[in-house]
Amino acid sequence: MNIEAVDLYYLSMPVIEDVGDGSQDVLLVRAAGGVFTGWGECEAAPLPSIAAWCCPMSHSACKPVRDSVLGQKLDGPDDIARINRLVRENGLDLLQTDHTLSGIDIALWDLLGKAKQQPVYELLGYDRACPKTPYASQLFGETPQQTLDKARATGEQGYRAVKFGWMNYGRGSVEDDRDHVAAAREGIGDDGLIMIDAGTVWIDDVAQAKQRLAALNEHRVLWLEEPFVSGALSAYAELAADCGDVKLAAGEGAHNFYMAQHLIDHGRIGYLQIDTGRIGGITTAKAAADYAHANGVTYINHTFTSHLALSASLQPFAGIEADVICEYPVEPRALANELTRTRLELNAAGQVELPVAPGLGIEIDPETIDRYHVDVQIEVDSRKLF
Amino acid sequence: MNIEAVDLYYLSMPVIEDVGDGSQDVLLVRAAGGVFTGWGECEAAPLPSIAAWCCPMSHSACKPVRDSVLGQKLDGPDDIARINRLVRENGLDLLQTDHTLSGIDIALWDLLGKAKQQPVYELLGYDRACPKTPYASQLFGETPQQTLDKARATGEQGYRAVKFGWMNYGRGSVEDDRDHVAAAREGIGDDGLIMIDAGTVWIDDVAQAKQRLAALNEHRVLWLEEPFVSGALSAYAELAADCGDVKLAAGEGAHNFYMAQHLIDHGRIGYLQIDTGRIGGITTAKAAADYAHANGVTYINHTFTSHLALSASLQPFAGIEADVICEYPVEPRALANELTRTRLELNAAGQVELPVAPGLGIEIDPETIDRYHVDVQIEVDSRKLF
Repeated sequence: MNIEAVDLYYLSMPVIEDVGDGSQDVLLVRAAGGVFTGWGECEAAPLPSIAAWCCPMSHSACKPVRDSVLGQKLDGPDDIARINRLVRENGLDLLQTDHTLSGIDIALWDLLGKAKQQPVYELLGYDRACPKTPYASQLFGETPQQTLDKARATGEQGYRAVKFGWMNYGRGSVEDDRDHVAAAREGIGDDGLIMIDAGTVWIDDVAQAKQRLAALNEHRVLWLEEPFVSGALSAYAELAADCGDVKLAAGEGAHNFYMAQHLIDHGRIGYLQIDTGRIGGITTAKAAADYAHANGVTYINHTFTSHLALSASLQPFAGIEADVICEYPVEPRALANELTRTRLELNAAGQVELPVAPGLGIEIDPETIDRYHVDVQIEVDSRKLF
Repeated sequence: MNIEAVDLYYLSMPVIEDVGDGSQDVLLVRAAGGVFTGWGECEAAPLPSIAAWCCPMSHSACKPVRDSVLGQKLDGPDDIARINRLVRENGLDLLQTDHTLSGIDIALWDLLGKAKQQPVYELLGYDRACPKTPYASQLFGETPQQTLDKARATGEQGYRAVKFGWMNYGRGSVEDDRDHVAAAREGIGDDGLIMIDAGTVWIDDVAQAKQRLAALNEHRVLWLEEPFVSGALSAYAELAADCGDVKLAAGEGAHNFYMAQHLIDHGRIGYLQIDTGRIGGITTAKAAADYAHANGVTYINHTFTSHLALSASLQPFAGIEADVICEYPVEPRALANELTRTRLELNAAGQVELPVAPGLGIEIDPETIDRYHVDVQIEVDSRKLF
């Protein structure tokens, strides 16, 4: 078939709060070919990503994503790989390209899976999708008591692993941070797994990060996530050498394969966390998963939004049995909750299983699109581009 | 003073051709504070960069650039550094941020220099601006004969160094590429310097690049530029080990300090080429120049557009006497030529000198803005954002 249409939908909660919660808006992608429809989601600022889709050409290596996608042949995985290369070659100097590509690539895999009547993980070469053990991903409380209450409630919901992140962690005193980590341990209990997400708070300041290591080791934290921005490889490597039993996790900011590779090769991380909605979609995420696997690094999805994004994010490492932990959004906004009619609920063993269904196996709720849809009008020299 | 206004102007040639010439459009930035005005230029797709400026917030680490710039205090270089950090912290998940920031940062340095009545290079800590030896940067001819004619004409204009790039180089046969390189050598003469720009044509395919090395060494090419995309560090390092007297040059795609650092630390390049209009402006470019200098790597500006961009691109390494070569656009489009009333013409010795004048020392021609201005209208839910 040919890719006959790609539609981008900017969805948003009525009010966006100034907190580290990426589920407040969505750039949803619909790709159509023949009688089939595929869906994807960009984990990205919607308006700039729409602009990267429809902007005028600046020169031969700075073209809108649209030009490299519409009308392309789509008969197998090789076509998606070819479209990826074309988008990136034509968008070399258009920085936002990778984020726009991500949702489109996901929609193309969903579309191809529906046309072939195969789950995406099969198209990726996996025999089956192994169940994953979810960790509950959430923001720290404002006080240690709130963090304790959240961790306890999470354990009572059946989770054995919990990740806390953002809020004031790393911004206040070392003692405050220690109290929050201790509270998380107390709340989830001795047998639970704890991860801490620093949200790049120290940028590349290794000394700041090192001050928190004692508490992380004392409370047996599995990983410290994103102490630094994605590019601060030497800071990662320096901290990794001092981490004790705590390993470093990073990668959500990776917007191409190379950034993931560098974190492994030069940043010495132990966990590679890839957001399929940013790295360039399922195609690039799968390459990163393969590289991590070959280098003894555990691959994990990064997902904070809808179950469409969740299904997409689990496909690239669905068949890697050893990489058993997965991120699972537990407190997304209504928009993300209502976006899909299909939900990947935990099974009786508390695990997440991918749908055994064509494509991503997720049904979108069109009423949700209508309810949260944000109208975007872009005109350049009176020519309507969107 | 405070930053009272920032205006973005999308300028474009009436027709954009599908060739590797980045001078066909411009995103010009005007920053105003008190009675002063500063100008900058983003080397970026204008529409997505405008969207990154004015888009609605998605969450706390995905805010429009505007929110971190307007109203900020600007009394010295430290304020610009602080604004840079703020923009990047607030735009962590908005990929296009770095390109938008670039033009704004340049405009802020120009503004500050005008307010302080000092050239930017002085504000950066340099005593003086050393003259630079320009190389003529241009596209390969379509045939070896055209390349020979272009090289000869360039030599006759007084240039002793010429760089050819893009077009079909690397896309056809090894023999065709050799003939073009031989033609460039013949045209510029035995004493001239030749650089070759592969324009990332081999992405990360080391074998393809290695096939071209013999001809590059035979014709004494100074550097081979961008054989691969910026992230392909291991490909760069592998090729560098085999390059003979030819060194590798890269960095124009760097959109933050870390990418420049990685090319030096892990890519083993000999020349670091930074586009001030992409890396985050003069602030980040200066940090990259310092890092290159400390690591024995030669810093060079990457500039293909106006003399405003040229002046901005020369400031970060103006005082590094040993880094004497600079890129100089010889065949930009009319828009880029007409944008500035001030031009950095070659002096009697064939060198480029920065203006000894406040800020960037470049006067913009307002009539050029009117002539090439592209009207942009962006509305989100009937709210006019631009």
